[in-house]
Amino acid sequence: MTRITPDRWQLPDGVDELLPDAAWQVEALRRRIVDCCMSWGFDLVMPPMIEYLDSLLTGTGQTMDLQTFKLVDQQNGRTMGVRADMTPQVARMDAHALRGDMPNRLFYTGSVLRARTDGFGGSRSPLQFGAELFGHAGSHSDIEVIRLMLATLAEANVTSPELILDLGHVGVYRALVKNLNLTPEASDALFNSVQRGSLPDVQALLAGIPEAQSAGTAQLLGELLNLRGGENVLDSARSAFASGADDALQAIDSLQAVIDGVLQTHPDIEINIDLAELRGYSYHTGVLFAAYTASGDELARGGRYDAVGAAFGHPRPATGFSGDLKKLADAMKVAKQRHTGIFVSHDLVNEAWSEIERLRRSGERVVTELPDLDGVQHRANCDRVLERNDGKWSVVERL
Amino acid sequence: MTRITPDRWQLPDGVDELLPDAAWQVEALRRRIVDCCMSWGFDLVMPPMIEYLDSLLTGTGQTMDLQTFKLVDQQNGRTMGVRADMTPQVARMDAHALRGDMPNRLFYTGSVLRARTDGFGGSRSPLQFGAELFGHAGSHSDIEVIRLMLATLAEANVTSPELILDLGHVGVYRALVKNLNLTPEASDALFNSVQRGSLPDVQALLAGIPEAQSAGTAQLLGELLNLRGGENVLDSARSAFASGADDALQAIDSLQAVIDGVLQTHPDIEINIDLAELRGYSYHTGVLFAAYTASGDELARGGRYDAVGAAFGHPRPATGFSGDLKKLADAMKVAKQRHTGIFVSHDLVNEAWSEIERLRRSGERVVTELPDLDGVQHRANCDRVLERNDGKWSVVERL
Repeated sequence: MTRITPDRWQLPDGVDELLPDAAWQVEALRRRIVDCCMSWGFDLVMPPMIEYLDSLLTGTGQTMDLQTFKLVDQQNGRTMGVRADMTPQVARMDAHALRGDMPNRLFYTGSVLRARTDGFGGSRSPLQFGAELFGHAGSHSDIEVIRLMLATLAEANVTSPELILDLGHVGVYRALVKNLNLTPEASDALFNSVQRGSLPDVQALLAGIPEAQSAGTAQLLGELLNLRGGENVLDSARSAFASGADDALQAIDSLQAVIDGVLQTHPDIEINIDLAELRGYSYHTGVLFAAYTASGDELARGGRYDAVGAAFGHPRPATGFSGDLKKLADAMKVAKQRHTGIFVSHDLVNEAWSEIERLRRSGERVVTELPDLDGVQHRANCDRVLERNDGKWSVVERL
Repeated sequence: MTRITPDRWQLPDGVDELLPDAAWQVEALRRRIVDCCMSWGFDLVMPPMIEYLDSLLTGTGQTMDLQTFKLVDQQNGRTMGVRADMTPQVARMDAHALRGDMPNRLFYTGSVLRARTDGFGGSRSPLQFGAELFGHAGSHSDIEVIRLMLATLAEANVTSPELILDLGHVGVYRALVKNLNLTPEASDALFNSVQRGSLPDVQALLAGIPEAQSAGTAQLLGELLNLRGGENVLDSARSAFASGADDALQAIDSLQAVIDGVLQTHPDIEINIDLAELRGYSYHTGVLFAAYTASGDELARGGRYDAVGAAFGHPRPATGFSGDLKKLADAMKVAKQRHTGIFVSHDLVNEAWSEIERLRRSGERVVTELPDLDGVQHRANCDRVLERNDGKWSVVERL
């Protein structure tokens, strides 16, 4: 058998393994977030790891396609994809298996794989968690999921003032470009230029388009790129787009309503508005939001996406958020638990079995000694031992 | 946007999605099993979903290769595999990242993908759980992991007499064929014939091999195929292989020691011995064990595999087990929880926010009403409502 050289140990870029301390931190946080989402009336679902590509990618756009690892089903030759994002899967579950007319609150947590290292902080194997609310089109469902997002981050002890809430609305951009009659390719190119915040590229792309000239689109998009900052940004936006772009003003109003709602329960939260921030929101249609640490790490993001369900024959308004549990656990900065436990020497194990079972059921960590090992066996991070005194079992400190 | 036809909904064979009731059952069982493994002093690890193929498959044999979905890393063209079994990954973690000389107890739970529907009850996307004990070669570590396997199944309420423990030892078969000087191909073919229990195939394969003729291997393997049943099977095996096959007798003795150990703490368990059962144990080297329901469903299996770590430069004795959480949750047959919760009408949400937060933290499920929905909004499976009486919040039954 060949000996593995150090080089062959290397994990792929953006792929990690979690050793006990880190794994337990993720597990403990996972439980808290699951309990939190349940307590808000959201129901847990587990979408499939792989699906046929035509259902997995429908309605999600080109970015998701590039991010999705493809597999061939040996049993019939059809192409499958490994999920790169669970949100569209949950939208399909709402539109199909859980079809109904009333609001549907769903959450999930599980591994996703991404073919590229962009997004999710460079990870290609995030442990995605998130929640989605289907069946309500008004700002109150956006407010509910933003509040839930803040509650899940609070489970990781990430709260104000270390937390910054970014808000935007894809509808402002959409309103400014909707009458340009762009080809799909030109539309993608323009979207990408705005995502990158590159005004020269925007101007170059619009130069040959008569509708853009007459509407002054290049100038309007130039103003959009500068609309970032505190709440006063919304006033500036109202003046900038006052003439003509009714849809843009409606988008600004619904963003205002969401901000007002969030501030009612979270009056101290720092809000940052950016109307040109469109990165990573490929299938979104309305309000956009993201939570950052003060040092600029993105912990969760989401927004409204009323279009995805339509592809599955049951159009439903939808809003939700998601993040990477592993990344959030990193941001958690909790002191590691001290290892404790009760060590039981080998010759006592069988006689003490009922007592060992009782201790384990009571939440104690009980490690039984293995015989016939060379050298002194360390006590597996135990701080106590089980002893029999006068025919009774007792737990005794032995460091 | 195209409308999805029913056909495009279909999930691949052996792939499933879990809706809320089933998902919660899996989640609740997952927690109990995690707590159980922790209480035994096993540490949680999270191996990567994907790895380069040369580290993922080293030491695991051809069966695992066929079961592994292959992906190309777009960033460097190297072939990666999606994990089809976490046991070899955990062995690598023990041999590398957690390298040491003392016993190492590790457990894990996570999604795996399998290219074919054979094994794991036809599932291609099991939620694998399992535990591994590294660094101890004697029967006591086999006994510990079998007891832990029984404890995890007890968390799913699967215990005697509904549970049957199958036991075997790959060393008996290995001893009978070790002097045949078979080519690797002939060796695989013979192993497969014994796995299938096909004596005519065994005889045909051995017909042209002089060593087999002189040792009477075909007759011995014929006896092996019949060695299944209760504890008396071990006595029959001792007589059958008394002449010449010392390794076989040693394997029988260590199997006897494991059975004696298990019976000391689980005197009522039904044990079934099958010395020719080799299915699904591609990298195993010693004692083999599996837990079945009385109706024949396999819930977990495992065994000793002292060879895997050697490929990673740190040979360690190892023994462990694993199963599919989704399948075990199916076997659990627990009555579904009645849905309960507190519904809060929309006009109260902001004023009642502190009370809502308090109720949620206390473990209550609290659902807030969304305004402006057509028709009467159902109360999201809530059995109570939040009301304000005389300026105080109270929870009132309203079915």
